[in-house]
Amino acid sequence: MRNLQPSALQQALERANHPDVLSLALGMPDPELFPGEELAAAAQMVLKKGSQALQYSSPRLRLKEQIAELMLRRDIVCSPEEIFLTTGAQQALTLLGMLLRPQPDTPILVDEAVYPGFRQATDPAVLLPVVREGLCRIDPDALDDAMRADPRPAFLFTMSAGHNPFGTTMSEGSRRELAVAASRLDLPIVEDDVYGLLQYGDPASEPLYPLDPEHVFYVGSFSKILGPALRTAWIIAPKRYHTALSVLKEGCDINTTTTSQAIISEYLELCQLDVHLARLRDRYRERRDLMDRTLTRHFAGAATWQVPLAGFFFWVSSDLFTQGSDLLAEAIAKRMAFVPGSAFAVAGAPHCHRAVRLSFSCCRRDSMDEAIRRLSQAAESRLCQHSFQGDTHGQH
Amino acid sequence: MRNLQPSALQQALERANHPDVLSLALGMPDPELFPGEELAAAAQMVLKKGSQALQYSSPRLRLKEQIAELMLRRDIVCSPEEIFLTTGAQQALTLLGMLLRPQPDTPILVDEAVYPGFRQATDPAVLLPVVREGLCRIDPDALDDAMRADPRPAFLFTMSAGHNPFGTTMSEGSRRELAVAASRLDLPIVEDDVYGLLQYGDPASEPLYPLDPEHVFYVGSFSKILGPALRTAWIIAPKRYHTALSVLKEGCDINTTTTSQAIISEYLELCQLDVHLARLRDRYRERRDLMDRTLTRHFAGAATWQVPLAGFFFWVSSDLFTQGSDLLAEAIAKRMAFVPGSAFAVAGAPHCHRAVRLSFSCCRRDSMDEAIRRLSQAAESRLCQHSFQGDTHGQH
Repeated sequence: MRNLQPSALQQALERANHPDVLSLALGMPDPELFPGEELAAAAQMVLKKGSQALQYSSPRLRLKEQIAELMLRRDIVCSPEEIFLTTGAQQALTLLGMLLRPQPDTPILVDEAVYPGFRQATDPAVLLPVVREGLCRIDPDALDDAMRADPRPAFLFTMSAGHNPFGTTMSEGSRRELAVAASRLDLPIVEDDVYGLLQYGDPASEPLYPLDPEHVFYVGSFSKILGPALRTAWIIAPKRYHTALSVLKEGCDINTTTTSQAIISEYLELCQLDVHLARLRDRYRERRDLMDRTLTRHFAGAATWQVPLAGFFFWVSSDLFTQGSDLLAEAIAKRMAFVPGSAFAVAGAPHCHRAVRLSFSCCRRDSMDEAIRRLSQAAESRLCQHSFQGDTHGQH
Repeated sequence: MRNLQPSALQQALERANHPDVLSLALGMPDPELFPGEELAAAAQMVLKKGSQALQYSSPRLRLKEQIAELMLRRDIVCSPEEIFLTTGAQQALTLLGMLLRPQPDTPILVDEAVYPGFRQATDPAVLLPVVREGLCRIDPDALDDAMRADPRPAFLFTMSAGHNPFGTTMSEGSRRELAVAASRLDLPIVEDDVYGLLQYGDPASEPLYPLDPEHVFYVGSFSKILGPALRTAWIIAPKRYHTALSVLKEGCDINTTTTSQAIISEYLELCQLDVHLARLRDRYRERRDLMDRTLTRHFAGAATWQVPLAGFFFWVSSDLFTQGSDLLAEAIAKRMAFVPGSAFAVAGAPHCHRAVRLSFSCCRRDSMDEAIRRLSQAAESRLCQHSFQGDTHGQH
């Protein structure tokens, strides 16, 4: 039997799961912003309409058509036949990992810091980090170097907008040179775009997918915009891969929760998604701006960060944040939580070890200042301990 | 990239997916028997109650308590903490396959005929067949022999009630001797009990699980009783495996559709499940009896079968049914479908090749006779072709 244990980080964060703890740790959407009433009405209609919504079924074509239409907001033109439904983006990553790796241990190229769920989805593959200049740009030369690994890496996993954990969004130039390099190397790219519809700049950045639909496997999701509990996401991939994806998907869970598919489809029929998305962006943009101002108040001169153009995360770097798991323990003692950069580091990428990831998605206006203040106090208190320990050592 | 293709059988059955075809092929529950109205009311209540039903969440403790109570109907006494929720029984098999195999290709012991989804769930494991005497009993000596395989098989997968595809239910004696043998060999058993609540005899047979809760990993599901679209099932396993199962599950799809969990839990709170289950058993028992009478009308003396005590399937054997894929093509031409026994055969188990699996779950009273008549005509017509071809060959 396999020996599988949650990480020390997961265990620490479980201790942080307490109402007194002001948490900037988890990348969850704010449930207050889900369209609960509208989804309730949709569920009611769907289940009353007939029992087919409760039966095994093929993926719902109408939902695929609606997703193809939604994708126009990301400048993606695709046919419903290119859309493959999955049980959340997590399963999309699992399936693409299985599809694109010839062997379970074939290496995969990733950014220096990666969403930990990707590691779980592709275990036991070796993840090889590719440097991101300024956390934004993948240098084509670095990609060339990384592709010399033996065995040849199966694909590159990346996020072009609202990167988790970096919070960064690639410029158009960076996207173009990456697409050119991938095409030249015949390297598939798995593009995780779960934050692509939550962009705060104008105009919003486009994804990698339209630059090379033959090499880019796009992953989108309803989790951040309608509710993760529905577990409904999608892959956009050339039609020729869909049969293999179906075989793999059936092995995992037969099909994607049909009731969720039906509820979302009915919701999209009944409601104005654009109005909902605009509201989400406004609310999250306010929180982003508030976190930026609050960080400035407590960390100006002591830490650096970029203001994210999409998604939920600030990546804040400072020498105050080294030995992140100790700092997290200190912060939890002060009833505040974050995720240390080291939790995302691939093959010990060095600069992750002086960074923290802070999520603004669920932080209320009246607790932001207190949360960041506690982080600052935790960092200072550890600094004092270190100086004190330094003195003590000096005396011996 | 992996080369994955659906089987020739799947392709044939897709051609059979036409309203004119009377299908006894698929093991689906009858959607007319789902409690659609009640689930609609439950969904409405859950989603209106608040947005937490749409958020990521830990598995719902209340639902685990309700499942523990439900399990008392299977003579299983377990604590909610021993219940692990999964995205359908298919995912339960995938997860247990990962948990219990030290390597992806460690062999697994199975019955001579196995539900094809199990093969998909455990690919690339080698499946080693253990003989079932009279399709009902696993001979402990045969199990001893099978365990001599190198590497040592990781576990035995079986169904004690309403076997898919055999339709058989193990006697109490067979269950006891199997449990004793598994304990002596320290062999884990994965028991798929998705038909355990759909038994037509009195008293219903008990599962293997209570005989050895340390070795038996039990799989139950709401798919056959409330609706497969909800994708909610469970494993009962000793608490010490739950952490590892959680890590594996998170890698697959983070968590089991929370909305489904909430809807089912609300349904179980509001409605009388026992009344619903009694109605299901009555309706399916009627169809089973009708299929038995109809088979007698068309195949008495020409084929043999056992009347199933649980589940949805008749396993009908006859020399008329050899070369099942040809027979299926002939049957589809006559607008009738079934699944040839060979589709379930493990390592070419010989007697599967003269059997067909017929499902009575969705067959309406007024079409049963016509469906079986067409099967009989397809078999006869092929017999004539063979004789004719024999004659032709004779003339040359």
